Amino acid sequence: MNLSATERSTLGRKPDRAATDRADLHAVLDEGWVCHLGVVRDGAPVVLPTAYGRDGETLYLHGSTGARYLRDDELPCCVTVTHLDGIVHARAVMHFSMNYRSAVVHGVAHRVHDPERHLHGLRTIIEHLTPGAWDHARRPSRRELAATAVFALDLGEASVKTRSGPPSDDEADVTADLAWAGVVPVRTVTGSPEPAPDLGGHHRLPAHLDRAGDPVDHRYG
Amino acid sequence: MNLSATERSTLGRKPDRAATDRADLHAVLDEGWVCHLGVVRDGAPVVLPTAYGRDGETLYLHGSTGARYLRDDELPCCVTVTHLDGIVHARAVMHFSMNYRSAVVHGVAHRVHDPERHLHGLRTIIEHLTPGAWDHARRPSRRELAATAVFALDLGEASVKTRSGPPSDDEADVTADLAWAGVVPVRTVTGSPEPAPDLGGHHRLPAHLDRAGDPVDHRYG
Repeated sequence: MNLSATERSTLGRKPDRAATDRADLHAVLDEGWVCHLGVVRDGAPVVLPTAYGRDGETLYLHGSTGARYLRDDELPCCVTVTHLDGIVHARAVMHFSMNYRSAVVHGVAHRVHDPERHLHGLRTIIEHLTPGAWDHARRPSRRELAATAVFALDLGEASVKTRSGPPSDDEADVTADLAWAGVVPVRTVTGSPEPAPDLGGHHRLPAHLDRAGDPVDHRYG
Repeated sequence: MNLSATERSTLGRKPDRAATDRADLHAVLDEGWVCHLGVVRDGAPVVLPTAYGRDGETLYLHGSTGARYLRDDELPCCVTVTHLDGIVHARAVMHFSMNYRSAVVHGVAHRVHDPERHLHGLRTIIEHLTPGAWDHARRPSRRELAATAVFALDLGEASVKTRSGPPSDDEADVTADLAWAGVVPVRTVTGSPEPAPDLGGHHRLPAHLDRAGDPVDHRYG
């Protein structure tokens, strides 16, 4: 199934960097922890980092019911998730670049009022951070649920853009053998879990976290 | 010197996470490689990842002169840079969180027309990626310069938000010793430089890149 091709989700620049498969979109979204949520407030753009989770073709977002930008039931927004994979050093400064994968979702997020779906959205967001976490920790209280707004955003209008591989220098610069060129890889890695200082001494690291301390970069491995 | 406190740069939620020193703002911006640039197009927000560079109280952005969103000389925008430092596992699902540092800059970016400042802006962006890169690679040609728009954004209206440390659970959940709680650290690291496949055999790694292959995480060290 192809990604949609509305005007704003069709890449104007470097269309060769566009992916068209929904599996690519899901992969980029699933690998990230933070999205950048763009909204319009008083006519001006505002971009805030926030957590999210994906279930099928729905992206869930949450926030305090007290947050100014979550006041309405409909939130026109743009959600962008970016993975930086490398710094591209070219022979010419104007060919410096970055290797990356990014997903951009356009749409209107709708506030979730149905209690079951509200809980499902929260679960999706927590499980996105670390699968297994939802069943490990205390479930939300009625008061906590009331304080937290959940929004659902359909993934129907989205684009994926990636750059990978070595620098794309002009042939003349390559032939002239001007300078060192290549890629410095960039990775996002997790370290060993650090127990809370007030954690009871008998707690062992739960099973759903037992890979987090691997020396192996398990998110890029 | 304090960060400005206009209405939109004053944190509505969790004001205890706000930093008020310009040094904090500069540190967050200087450590990042990618910013998320928010603009309004046809009334809707659009968030795109892009490179940037800082010189004093000015953030420089660049893009193709053919890019739709860079058509005008004035670009109302929001630039956000986020560093993810850890996933916070709490005893209760609603206290799961992330440790992070983020900078949000509001303002109007102005297209740079002065040739000297245009070049300075590009240099600032390239040097931000890797200090030393500008003097290493071929400088822009007249044609390359004409194809690249540079925008300058004043850092006057900005906010910094950070979260660090262990989970903030309810005292009752801590006392009940409900579940494992702690932080899984997240780091962004660079790997060994990978030379371009068509690089001449005599090139050694340039001095400004000689730390990139360190086993030590030099951006978080």
